[in-house]
Amino acid sequence: MFDVDTVRRDFPILSRKVNDRPLVYLDSGASAQKPQVVIDAITQAYSQEYANVHRGLHFLSNLATDKYEAVRGVVQRFLNAAHEDEILYTSGTTEGINLVSYGWAAPRLQAGDEIVLSVMEHHANIVPWHFLRERQGVKLVWVEPEADGSLDPQRVLDALTPRTKLVAVTHMSNVLGTVVDIRTIAAGCRERGVPVLADGSQAAVHMPVDVQDLGVDFYAITGHKLYGPSGSGAIYIRRERQAEMRPFIGGGDMIREVTRDAVTYNDPPHKFEAGTPGIVQQIGMGVAIEYMTGLGMEAIAAHERDLCAYAHERLSGLNWLNIQGNAPGKGGIFSFTMSNGAHAHDISTVLDKKGIAVRAGQHCTGPLMEHLGINASCRASFALYNTRAEVDALVEGLEFCHELFA
Amino acid sequence: MFDVDTVRRDFPILSRKVNDRPLVYLDSGASAQKPQVVIDAITQAYSQEYANVHRGLHFLSNLATDKYEAVRGVVQRFLNAAHEDEILYTSGTTEGINLVSYGWAAPRLQAGDEIVLSVMEHHANIVPWHFLRERQGVKLVWVEPEADGSLDPQRVLDALTPRTKLVAVTHMSNVLGTVVDIRTIAAGCRERGVPVLADGSQAAVHMPVDVQDLGVDFYAITGHKLYGPSGSGAIYIRRERQAEMRPFIGGGDMIREVTRDAVTYNDPPHKFEAGTPGIVQQIGMGVAIEYMTGLGMEAIAAHERDLCAYAHERLSGLNWLNIQGNAPGKGGIFSFTMSNGAHAHDISTVLDKKGIAVRAGQHCTGPLMEHLGINASCRASFALYNTRAEVDALVEGLEFCHELFA
Repeated sequence: MFDVDTVRRDFPILSRKVNDRPLVYLDSGASAQKPQVVIDAITQAYSQEYANVHRGLHFLSNLATDKYEAVRGVVQRFLNAAHEDEILYTSGTTEGINLVSYGWAAPRLQAGDEIVLSVMEHHANIVPWHFLRERQGVKLVWVEPEADGSLDPQRVLDALTPRTKLVAVTHMSNVLGTVVDIRTIAAGCRERGVPVLADGSQAAVHMPVDVQDLGVDFYAITGHKLYGPSGSGAIYIRRERQAEMRPFIGGGDMIREVTRDAVTYNDPPHKFEAGTPGIVQQIGMGVAIEYMTGLGMEAIAAHERDLCAYAHERLSGLNWLNIQGNAPGKGGIFSFTMSNGAHAHDISTVLDKKGIAVRAGQHCTGPLMEHLGINASCRASFALYNTRAEVDALVEGLEFCHELFA
Repeated sequence: MFDVDTVRRDFPILSRKVNDRPLVYLDSGASAQKPQVVIDAITQAYSQEYANVHRGLHFLSNLATDKYEAVRGVVQRFLNAAHEDEILYTSGTTEGINLVSYGWAAPRLQAGDEIVLSVMEHHANIVPWHFLRERQGVKLVWVEPEADGSLDPQRVLDALTPRTKLVAVTHMSNVLGTVVDIRTIAAGCRERGVPVLADGSQAAVHMPVDVQDLGVDFYAITGHKLYGPSGSGAIYIRRERQAEMRPFIGGGDMIREVTRDAVTYNDPPHKFEAGTPGIVQQIGMGVAIEYMTGLGMEAIAAHERDLCAYAHERLSGLNWLNIQGNAPGKGGIFSFTMSNGAHAHDISTVLDKKGIAVRAGQHCTGPLMEHLGINASCRASFALYNTRAEVDALVEGLEFCHELFA
């Protein structure tokens, strides 16, 4: 049984105070806190089991390699990929999507070719494509969300043309909380032979993900949002797409042979993983994912659905609060502004004095902010360790802000 | 005073046994072990001080940002860079050199332009340039080491032509231990207006480095060899070269503004750092560097010189051992083969049974192996925590191997 009080005790930072108040951490959408098992795994790795991987034949190197490589299977099962070699290690979603941009798209797309994006993408799923626009004349085609923040799959499919070479959309908006129907989008794209990339940075944290069922070609996740270490991550890339890719980062480990005149490359996945990797971070991410699956992704999702419904009920009771995004089935991300025009940064600062951590700003979503007609918003994002009492604390804090900035 | 026994107690892994023998870790050239202060800093960061950086306004985010950004000054002082913004964070040397290849060289070099490399470069300083050869017809020009493994700076300068656009050489060979006279190379290159990149992966671990005195344009270091976390690193890039660079990895944080039609970029160094970075790794690298500078880089160098002289004396007494590299002033890296033709992997495996960790293989130096006419070698690499007794253990182990494989 998922018991949030028990779960909270697994996260040491949640016991600390901030500004003399118990920490109410509602910024997991930016980065999640880490359970003790992850911290312990890192300590164990550096204290007792550390060496470089792949290259040594000695005991510690073999031990570190086994632990490091075992995470590939953990991620494979987490995403239900068909093959372990479809999981490539990255330092996070940003590197993962850049890998696709540099390794798959750059050598294949011509001037005038099109990439379809939603307006609610995070900059990590925009800027790598802007590079292709700037550097080789690729055209970005934007699909707008509906008024409630949902993304109509048909709108995405209607944006396809014979020049469309890729559809790149988030699985869950980091601002609106919208869960995107990737499955329908991918099914329609497959009929037209267009590959689909899903940014799973937020979604994989909150719900079971099955890349085969979704039917995507690329699915990027980031460890630090998955309760794992900073600098960890992975991307699922379907074998057929990998076969079309050239390497991205060059260095040791990703080669078969290097001479003065030539270089040949290693087999995937190693072809796409150069140099000494984030050994301990990846090991930590594996432990974090196993922590989540140990709790059960369905149980986590159920807890968060309950929390989300409660937050929705409480926050929508504040008739001076404008919540951005109200799509059916949205996840536990609430971005908002106040009708009195109080600045997001000021709200965030006042909440912080009460120990409540929320984010304020553009949330790395320039085009969405422009679409919404706002410069900035506050965002409270929930995770598996959050409680109804924390929702109450947020509401109380917001009421205080509303009076303060009246 | 530098006392190696005291120092060893700072590294918890050095107390462990391997195969029932005390660990003799002679693989620091692949990756160094971590002192307790680094492990503690990681634990502290995740247990009490974790949040995403730059983006939040709340207490934990500010705290993490301050700690994370403070490391830039630590690295600046470590390398004596003129400006803090000349230090760019990376996940290690491999990413650092790829940043130079993609961000500086790729948009500037034309077919037929030349990059001068030494034959003893690590693949991290070869493959990114092979990409430019493969993709845009850049020519790689190779400079061979002398018979003793030294690199004659004049040979490098003699290789320059009017088409030379970059010289990329290691500051210390990871196989031969050769310390390269980067200062003379850079002085000669500056007269011809040719930028110089130095791969400092090995050198920065063992000696004081002053990038201004060396006169280089690019100097890459990697945290995991500097007793810091895996996945940490930095590269010094002179301001003038940064001004010539386009961004490499695209995503959050490295932009000023993103719209549907355009993107503008942040100021350096952030322009070259996209997405959620290796927050805790970089904090850990800062602690590792401060640990080293606390001991004193001169003191570390003196200890290692002594150890190296002792190792040289003992190993050169084995007349059936062929040591690759005997340049004056070489650092504590001893690569070797046996006259009886025993395979490097077998030697490494036997040593491992005695608790001695050495590396066997090509050491990510294909062209050097070809130049030396060998397929593989064993490598014992020393660090600040190694002792004369460990040299003795190595010699004893090698004598055992020599008899075993006679």
